[in-house]
Amino acid sequence: MATNELFQYSIVSALMDGVASTGLPINTLLSHGDHGLGTFRYIVGEMIILDGQLYQMKSDGSVLSIEPSNSQDIVAPFAMVTHFQPTAAVKSSISSKSELFDLLTDLLPSARNHYIAMRIDGVFKAMTVRTVGGQQSPGEGLAEVGKHQVSHNFKEPTSGTIIGFRSPEYMQGISVAGDHLHFISADRKKGGHLLALESDGEVEIQTADISTVRLELPCHDAEFDKAKLKGDRERIMAVEG
Amino acid sequence: MATNELFQYSIVSALMDGVASTGLPINTLLSHGDHGLGTFRYIVGEMIILDGQLYQMKSDGSVLSIEPSNSQDIVAPFAMVTHFQPTAAVKSSISSKSELFDLLTDLLPSARNHYIAMRIDGVFKAMTVRTVGGQQSPGEGLAEVGKHQVSHNFKEPTSGTIIGFRSPEYMQGISVAGDHLHFISADRKKGGHLLALESDGEVEIQTADISTVRLELPCHDAEFDKAKLKGDRERIMAVEG
Repeated sequence: MATNELFQYSIVSALMDGVASTGLPINTLLSHGDHGLGTFRYIVGEMIILDGQLYQMKSDGSVLSIEPSNSQDIVAPFAMVTHFQPTAAVKSSISSKSELFDLLTDLLPSARNHYIAMRIDGVFKAMTVRTVGGQQSPGEGLAEVGKHQVSHNFKEPTSGTIIGFRSPEYMQGISVAGDHLHFISADRKKGGHLLALESDGEVEIQTADISTVRLELPCHDAEFDKAKLKGDRERIMAVEG
Repeated sequence: MATNELFQYSIVSALMDGVASTGLPINTLLSHGDHGLGTFRYIVGEMIILDGQLYQMKSDGSVLSIEPSNSQDIVAPFAMVTHFQPTAAVKSSISSKSELFDLLTDLLPSARNHYIAMRIDGVFKAMTVRTVGGQQSPGEGLAEVGKHQVSHNFKEPTSGTIIGFRSPEYMQGISVAGDHLHFISADRKKGGHLLALESDGEVEIQTADISTVRLELPCHDAEFDKAKLKGDRERIMAVEG
């Protein structure tokens, strides 16, 4: 795929319906992009991919670096990746997720109905991340999994990288509408799905407009075939917002 | 693109919002598939593509064969195409669109949450097609355009081909959920968006499961950038169902 095209495997509504017993092998996923996020079989932990390296951030606070050569059995039931090539960049301090949202909107004014890929590098304080601990039984939906997630507040300023995507409102249920961001620290020892952030001074924000999306739906997956996939905006925002 | 991958330009909600002043040049569209449907600039008529040949079916009842070499200015504000390679086929009589729906569901049982491409060849009686006549002013939405569409009932049995796609429910607003079918007669002299059908004896039904979708969103298109794209299930079904 060309740079700044989005590859997405499965849809968020499938995760909401607990479709997570199988997925796309991560070797295949990495062939479609070097920058992205997702989750793992049985929704065990948060996935982040930066500079082509894939990490699993687990609810016990551990972070595993996953090597493609060892990963035949490691699959993503949901993931979004791109070959990221920033087309706009700015240095700025950020006081909140909503300030970041507005800043990116101003940076890419013609991307209002497109996707956006982003990467933010710097030092953050008052950051909150969550890591989902996995399904307690096969088929448990993401909203239920989210109820027993673990949140971490970083007490000290932490250097690291945020990777994420903005998806347009009309894609809610397919993707997560709005900004969906994962974080990993520079020492690769902590991270997760980003709930709240405040930068410690200026951080570097890089972004790119995405107007081509390749969506790959699960095949030979009985859970996906029979899932209702009704989506539910409120429930998706509660667990992924 | 590989066979049986869907290429879609823009989204149905954009047509509903009247985004139709520009679009994808049909030369580019045809590079992505030889089988499909769509519409033209200002929603003037119905598009059908079979065996790589593209036709414009207009509300005055005329059918134009569009040659790619002459088409730099001919654009599709919305279209869906694939390189169609049927994976299942059956000969059957069909008494209605809903019977066709059930027949295809039985033919591809694991495609319930996928797209389906289809082609039906044979003789049809009691067929009703509509052809939209175009926007009365730029930006007029598809629901309004549909109010001044022209319907044709074919009084005599007509030989021809139906080309279309089934889209999953969760893609309503992106695509048209359910079966979206266009028809053209064997003599290429009449056709349109299919509202009702009954076959005259057995027809040949060919179909294929689609699990990979490439969605290309309009770029450098001020109408698309500012469109609300809220979708509206009832209005889409009223005009496209």
